[in-house]
Amino acid sequence: MSPKVSQEHLKQRRAKILAAATEVFTEQGYERTTMKHVMEAAGVSRGGLYHYFSNKEDLYEAILEDNLLREHTSTQNILEKKVDSYWELLLKVLFGEEMNPNDEMDALAPSNLEFFITGRQDERRRAYGQKRYQLGLKIYRDILQAGQDKGEFSKKYKSDILARTIIAFIDGLALEDAILPKEEVKLKEQSIMLIDYLKMALEVKV
Amino acid sequence: MSPKVSQEHLKQRRAKILAAATEVFTEQGYERTTMKHVMEAAGVSRGGLYHYFSNKEDLYEAILEDNLLREHTSTQNILEKKVDSYWELLLKVLFGEEMNPNDEMDALAPSNLEFFITGRQDERRRAYGQKRYQLGLKIYRDILQAGQDKGEFSKKYKSDILARTIIAFIDGLALEDAILPKEEVKLKEQSIMLIDYLKMALEVKV
Repeated sequence: MSPKVSQEHLKQRRAKILAAATEVFTEQGYERTTMKHVMEAAGVSRGGLYHYFSNKEDLYEAILEDNLLREHTSTQNILEKKVDSYWELLLKVLFGEEMNPNDEMDALAPSNLEFFITGRQDERRRAYGQKRYQLGLKIYRDILQAGQDKGEFSKKYKSDILARTIIAFIDGLALEDAILPKEEVKLKEQSIMLIDYLKMALEVKV
Repeated sequence: MSPKVSQEHLKQRRAKILAAATEVFTEQGYERTTMKHVMEAAGVSRGGLYHYFSNKEDLYEAILEDNLLREHTSTQNILEKKVDSYWELLLKVLFGEEMNPNDEMDALAPSNLEFFITGRQDERRRAYGQKRYQLGLKIYRDILQAGQDKGEFSKKYKSDILARTIIAFIDGLALEDAILPKEEVKLKEQSIMLIDYLKMALEVKV
């Protein structure tokens, strides 16, 4: 007999650990969190946790990977079909289904910044950061390029460099959101400026 | 007799410590640097160092303050006189006297990011970060506002929000520069996009 139930059970358990770990990292940041904190939050034994992740870095990379890959796959699926408006697709990727900038930042962002900044001299961390940057870059670049190919966006600027500036700007906002009081960041107003910048650069008339 | 020589000597000694400390922080980052490292690099005794700075945080804030205040004072002095081109002034503050974007980032930037990110839950660090953000914001906002008042810049966007987006974008670039390989960041090309963005938003014709 095949161990079907067991496989499904293992998958669920992994998801449960990742969800609990995300909460702990969000609250405490990367450095201060230990594998013991995650064990307690997820309600698993030491063996139960280490069966899936051999250390904190593995665990954290798994969280980051799940989120980014989901975004990437979903965008790729959309791009394979006919897209009515690449501008709307871009806004959805940036601000969610409602395309509505608000004052909320990804809750895990401060922990992510810590993960990459404190580990900036570590080879594995740097390699992972680069891989992640490339994947994020690809999401924006593919949308921009497809919109330019279709003629919806101006070709005045290269999709690659525009995509990079989107990431730089969002990274800067994430940094400010992590460091400054909420009312100081003016996330929504700055996001609206990002939209206006892209409208100007892509010559979008909406 | 007044202790004139002694005063001057103390000032020079402080400057020497700050210069040596800047080098150490640049090389090792904030967290890994200790007061002992600074003593050795500056060639001063423990008493000699603690006479000026009671801990690492004091020392680091003094470095940050010296740099930002110099920039702020110099900009204020310029703004008090007649300015021919606020656009040129803005480019000089952003990219130095030659107004020429290049691939070089402030060498202390990675350490700064570490300082504010790892200390983001500490009250003193947060207050200092906010004070620093306000001062940086004022530099850009004052230039933008003066250019708008003179009619050199379009008033389409508020100087405050434009100034904030400049800082967000630069912060994002600093973050990428700290984490990614140099050839990946494309600092110069991204800086040129920042200039084009500001040209569009301020309706500058150059």
